[in-house]
Amino acid sequence: MLVSAAPAPEQTAIDDPGFKGAVANLQRLTGDDLTLVNEEIVAAMRSPVAMIPDLAGHLVQAGGKRLRPMLTLAAARAFDYKGDSHVKLAAAVELIHAATLLHDDVVDASALRRGLETANVIWGNKESVLVGDFIFSRAFELMVEAGDLCVLQILSSASGVIAEGEVLQLATQKNLNATFEMYLAVVESKTAALFAAAAQAGAVIAGADGDASEAFRRYARNLGIAYQLVDDALDYSGYEAALGKRVGDDFREGKMTLPIVYALQRATDEEKAFWRRTISEGRQNGDDLAAARAALERTGAIDDTIACARRFADQALIDLERAPQNVYSHALAELAAASVNRGY
Amino acid sequence: MLVSAAPAPEQTAIDDPGFKGAVANLQRLTGDDLTLVNEEIVAAMRSPVAMIPDLAGHLVQAGGKRLRPMLTLAAARAFDYKGDSHVKLAAAVELIHAATLLHDDVVDASALRRGLETANVIWGNKESVLVGDFIFSRAFELMVEAGDLCVLQILSSASGVIAEGEVLQLATQKNLNATFEMYLAVVESKTAALFAAAAQAGAVIAGADGDASEAFRRYARNLGIAYQLVDDALDYSGYEAALGKRVGDDFREGKMTLPIVYALQRATDEEKAFWRRTISEGRQNGDDLAAARAALERTGAIDDTIACARRFADQALIDLERAPQNVYSHALAELAAASVNRGY
Repeated sequence: MLVSAAPAPEQTAIDDPGFKGAVANLQRLTGDDLTLVNEEIVAAMRSPVAMIPDLAGHLVQAGGKRLRPMLTLAAARAFDYKGDSHVKLAAAVELIHAATLLHDDVVDASALRRGLETANVIWGNKESVLVGDFIFSRAFELMVEAGDLCVLQILSSASGVIAEGEVLQLATQKNLNATFEMYLAVVESKTAALFAAAAQAGAVIAGADGDASEAFRRYARNLGIAYQLVDDALDYSGYEAALGKRVGDDFREGKMTLPIVYALQRATDEEKAFWRRTISEGRQNGDDLAAARAALERTGAIDDTIACARRFADQALIDLERAPQNVYSHALAELAAASVNRGY
Repeated sequence: MLVSAAPAPEQTAIDDPGFKGAVANLQRLTGDDLTLVNEEIVAAMRSPVAMIPDLAGHLVQAGGKRLRPMLTLAAARAFDYKGDSHVKLAAAVELIHAATLLHDDVVDASALRRGLETANVIWGNKESVLVGDFIFSRAFELMVEAGDLCVLQILSSASGVIAEGEVLQLATQKNLNATFEMYLAVVESKTAALFAAAAQAGAVIAGADGDASEAFRRYARNLGIAYQLVDDALDYSGYEAALGKRVGDDFREGKMTLPIVYALQRATDEEKAFWRRTISEGRQNGDDLAAARAALERTGAIDDTIACARRFADQALIDLERAPQNVYSHALAELAAASVNRGY
């Protein structure tokens, strides 16, 4: 029930304490570590070239939920980790994410992120590309400092997969023949791979055995897919003030997300022509986003996208059953359960 | 003597067998390893996303001199290294370089590289940014496979410094107050840092002690500076057919390279106004490149840039005296000695 002509249902979702509460609980549990992660991030962006901390700080310090680094921290703590490498790894994970966002915003020509103007709008595309490279390099330096080759393998491999997913997404853009499988391949690589690697890295650095670290990896992969599916639904059904970014960005860029894949499967001839013009040919006018939302509602595409997300979130809960049961794994379970009902 | 109204001096430089011979000698010495490096590079770019090997292959397989990976290979062989990690590291070094070139060409909107149209022109800027990220990630995966944390630290730190240098270059662009020191800081980070790390990594993986690996690092740093200085001179004085890229690219982008820094120091009022209009304000017309070349010639700026390059090349030779003396270090010495007299 995330899509409606009336605002009430989304308002409900935004006010739903479930997701916000689950994030707040994880933030509380990982609080001291999370403070250290933020300090590592600020330190990593130091540079005599003033534009670097300015631009990077604009993005990173604007916040975000810090979901990915919390996965690393919680997974390490779930195995009673006593060292400090998990902080460096969590910071590295957030920096990989930040570098990806910077390059994403250039590629998508986005204007708003986390409630602020994007770096590419303020500083320029060139600057965003190069500072993204800098942040990416700093992420690797932090991983190397953590000093575990197995973890380095996990995270460096994930970062390659992310880039692969971004290219695949670009290649499927505007392609109305994109299937559920193609969409899922994009989501798995551009989003779920980093979620999975973040959690697995935390478990591995803490000395978890193969089965237990694998449980965290699978959990986080499925959480990541659920999370991205909801994101893609919110791009049509959310509120800008809550999202911190513009609604309809995916539509304007002609991205083939799951709502569109579903809507096309049940489209009338008139709707097919509409999607062809707006997505495939990229010819849009001012009323088209509203028309797209109406077509998505008529076909039940948003509800079905959320239902699909729920299946992945449910699987994430099953995956976690094979992990040690403690406050950390319980908080992660709560996060997965609530991840489908969120408005931001 | 690289600048002249008549073509003869450049022709001499192009035909000068010194640099070509030195490169060929290194290629012969590292031949089997270099073949393996090329195989690693091709393997690293494999992806089910077809655009990735297509785009990456266009750049990487177009060639280039493979100077940086040869530094890694020669340094490792100079210490009689018997393993195979040096091949992975050399491939990683070339991939870092390739990723940087892809992003550079987007940032500079370059149209020609290594005698071919640039990837950003053929595939687009977005694709070049994302495939650059992919190549960069693959470089890290290869380094991790090599399995030496000390080498990982050397190379990941260098890649951060490169990005910092690229941002600094962007920040000094069009700034007529840029000094020799600012220019050198850009060159040290955007070019010399990877040369230095490439050679040091080869020595360290081969088990060289601190003094000996430091000798290779310093040698390669100074070689890298000399190399970039000549590059910046050739951007005004070279021949396109030999360079494989357009002459005057730096001028059109308003880059503050050493020839301009020198020319400004000795500029007439009229020349100052010329540089202000063309570099600072970026207002150029068809005759301006020829006028720029004339001003550089009148002030001796190209000759002085080459003379400065020679001082760094000479220092590189002195640095190498502290390294083991064998066919590899002798070939590297020959390269440094010849690096100043090149036309491509």
